[in-house]
Amino acid sequence: MNDFILKDRTAIVGIGSTSFGKGFAESEEQLACQVIKQALDEAGISPSEVDALSSYTMQTNEEEEIARNLGFNDLTFFSRTPAGGGGGCGTVGHVAMAVATGQAKVGVAYRARKRSSKASRVWAGTQQRVNKRQMWESPFGHIRPVDDVAFLTKRYMHEFGATREHMANVALAFRKHASKNPASVMGNRPMTREQYMDARMISEPLCLFDCCLETDGAMAVVVVSADRAKDGPTKPAYIHAFSQGISAGSSMMFGYRAQDPFYTQAYACAKGLWQYSDYQPKDVQVAQIYDAFSPEIWFSLEGFGFCARGEGAASTENGGIEYGGRLPVNTSGGGLSEVYLHGFNHIVEAVRQVRGTSTLQVPNVQCSFASSSDGVPTGALLLRP
Amino acid sequence: MNDFILKDRTAIVGIGSTSFGKGFAESEEQLACQVIKQALDEAGISPSEVDALSSYTMQTNEEEEIARNLGFNDLTFFSRTPAGGGGGCGTVGHVAMAVATGQAKVGVAYRARKRSSKASRVWAGTQQRVNKRQMWESPFGHIRPVDDVAFLTKRYMHEFGATREHMANVALAFRKHASKNPASVMGNRPMTREQYMDARMISEPLCLFDCCLETDGAMAVVVVSADRAKDGPTKPAYIHAFSQGISAGSSMMFGYRAQDPFYTQAYACAKGLWQYSDYQPKDVQVAQIYDAFSPEIWFSLEGFGFCARGEGAASTENGGIEYGGRLPVNTSGGGLSEVYLHGFNHIVEAVRQVRGTSTLQVPNVQCSFASSSDGVPTGALLLRP
Repeated sequence: MNDFILKDRTAIVGIGSTSFGKGFAESEEQLACQVIKQALDEAGISPSEVDALSSYTMQTNEEEEIARNLGFNDLTFFSRTPAGGGGGCGTVGHVAMAVATGQAKVGVAYRARKRSSKASRVWAGTQQRVNKRQMWESPFGHIRPVDDVAFLTKRYMHEFGATREHMANVALAFRKHASKNPASVMGNRPMTREQYMDARMISEPLCLFDCCLETDGAMAVVVVSADRAKDGPTKPAYIHAFSQGISAGSSMMFGYRAQDPFYTQAYACAKGLWQYSDYQPKDVQVAQIYDAFSPEIWFSLEGFGFCARGEGAASTENGGIEYGGRLPVNTSGGGLSEVYLHGFNHIVEAVRQVRGTSTLQVPNVQCSFASSSDGVPTGALLLRP
Repeated sequence: MNDFILKDRTAIVGIGSTSFGKGFAESEEQLACQVIKQALDEAGISPSEVDALSSYTMQTNEEEEIARNLGFNDLTFFSRTPAGGGGGCGTVGHVAMAVATGQAKVGVAYRARKRSSKASRVWAGTQQRVNKRQMWESPFGHIRPVDDVAFLTKRYMHEFGATREHMANVALAFRKHASKNPASVMGNRPMTREQYMDARMISEPLCLFDCCLETDGAMAVVVVSADRAKDGPTKPAYIHAFSQGISAGSSMMFGYRAQDPFYTQAYACAKGLWQYSDYQPKDVQVAQIYDAFSPEIWFSLEGFGFCARGEGAASTENGGIEYGGRLPVNTSGGGLSEVYLHGFNHIVEAVRQVRGTSTLQVPNVQCSFASSSDGVPTGALLLRP
């Protein structure tokens, strides 16, 4: 047994968030600075104390620009996580590792994105040439991420008897949850099952409401040692377990070419997550699961061990993922109905559930789960009060 | 005192390297796979045991492509380090943290680059528009990294009385060291001080021989726990200390706009590096210091504490950085004369000095130092046998 593990050694003590919308005037760098300052203020920590920083490889600003603009002192740790929506939990885990091992004292993880402009979506711009994996896929119509997910979803439906109703269960649950969250983009737009069924197809069988929002916004969290956290002004969300995951044989945007296309990235991540944890999937009271597309919820429920293989879609029946159900998922509305911030909103909502400040609060949360995209190299966090 | 620190908990047990040259036929991904396999073979570790991976943000291939091509099993940690040549030591430190904290068991850090093709040098291509910091600098002639360094070097010469002779000391020392290293690109091209002085200017006062090579190549290292390292087939290079560094008020490519332009990134990194170390700068017997340009050696010698402020250039006098001198630097030839691999060759040579297998071996090395670029967010490692 390794006694040098991360369990409960660090905590998230500050969260920051912009409002969410489209066509923001600020740059991504400005948005990042705003939310980092806000998260530090909430935690009662001066920017000059920050010495670790992590964000996504897709984050457009440089570390030293954030540091100089906010008045950080010397930094001794920084990292980036690849793979877009797979990167969120990794950024938090990395600064937690830095703080736990004494490489740094105050860590900040963040994501700022102006996704409502096309420039921020790689596949939406014109490219000089199609390269890497896209070279083999684009000629067959796999142009956007949604095309990859649609392909896998069809196979899943065939294998496991899932239907569009099971996707509707996901989209409708999160819209319902968003209705309680005034900050969410879609909270004031109720949706009926009929509206869902009538929606236009984006990539069959995925319709408009199976696809995440295209929004602007930014969020940040502050991580310190458990010792320091207990004396702060906020209720700490202790980082009980963390892992990243790349599953054997996988490729970017779901391994539909793999021998087992449903051995998604979550499976590898789950191994790392539960190995040293005092909690197991059955102990999780509320889960924030990355949802760029509705069926990702099915895959992640299976991959992280919340249900058996092939039962992900069925798990959404009878309100199974709704507030009050077996496992409430995406209580702030998720990427489908709160905001699409490459999954950073899932992390912040997982913290709120520990604090007891969610707009759809699960009572007495002892174990709060957040995950990043299951379709690409990913990560997950277990938080506890 | 934090008893949860990295000191001596992990070790580098495998190194891999291609030959170096120009116009390689293989892709960067293929080169990466070759050296990773080679490093694992040397360490007697199967690819299926690797569960942590780190490289630079500038690395062009995706993690899962390396993993699938080499037959890795599930991975539970991965990271990237930003800032080009600043990223090398960070990649090794990150996988060391992952292994030390039980997030992973076998870590691989690597860099593969075909820099001899223009496409791999950001500023050498045509760009649609000049953005970010370049927007403010390019109109004044700061187009290439060498222009930034030249600007700072002139100021340094003015402040501290350095001359071109001090740059020549650097370039000639590394060329001399390379002459013992058959793998080095410039080892069979001896250089005289006269040739150096007659060389054409690239960005005054920096001449051709003050600038790093433009080469293709790849290197990798394998990191495991100290416990496991002692039973392996290679002599372990224990990771005694590690830090990254972004100095307060800094900006990309030397903070020549900062209040103190000579408070380079090394200063922040040094804080993190020496804080828990049993060794101090005076104990370092051999140093691999990142050298995209000769004067970086002056700045890093100061920043990491090997000499006092303003004495970096003077430290190169009388063979001070040559084999047999006070502190032998870049014993394999460095970025100026061995290969330019964004500083990964510095790490590998630091391992060789611990193993006793350098082509210019310092006797009985107990403390071997490697650093990444001082002009951008950086990192450093202290290795010991």
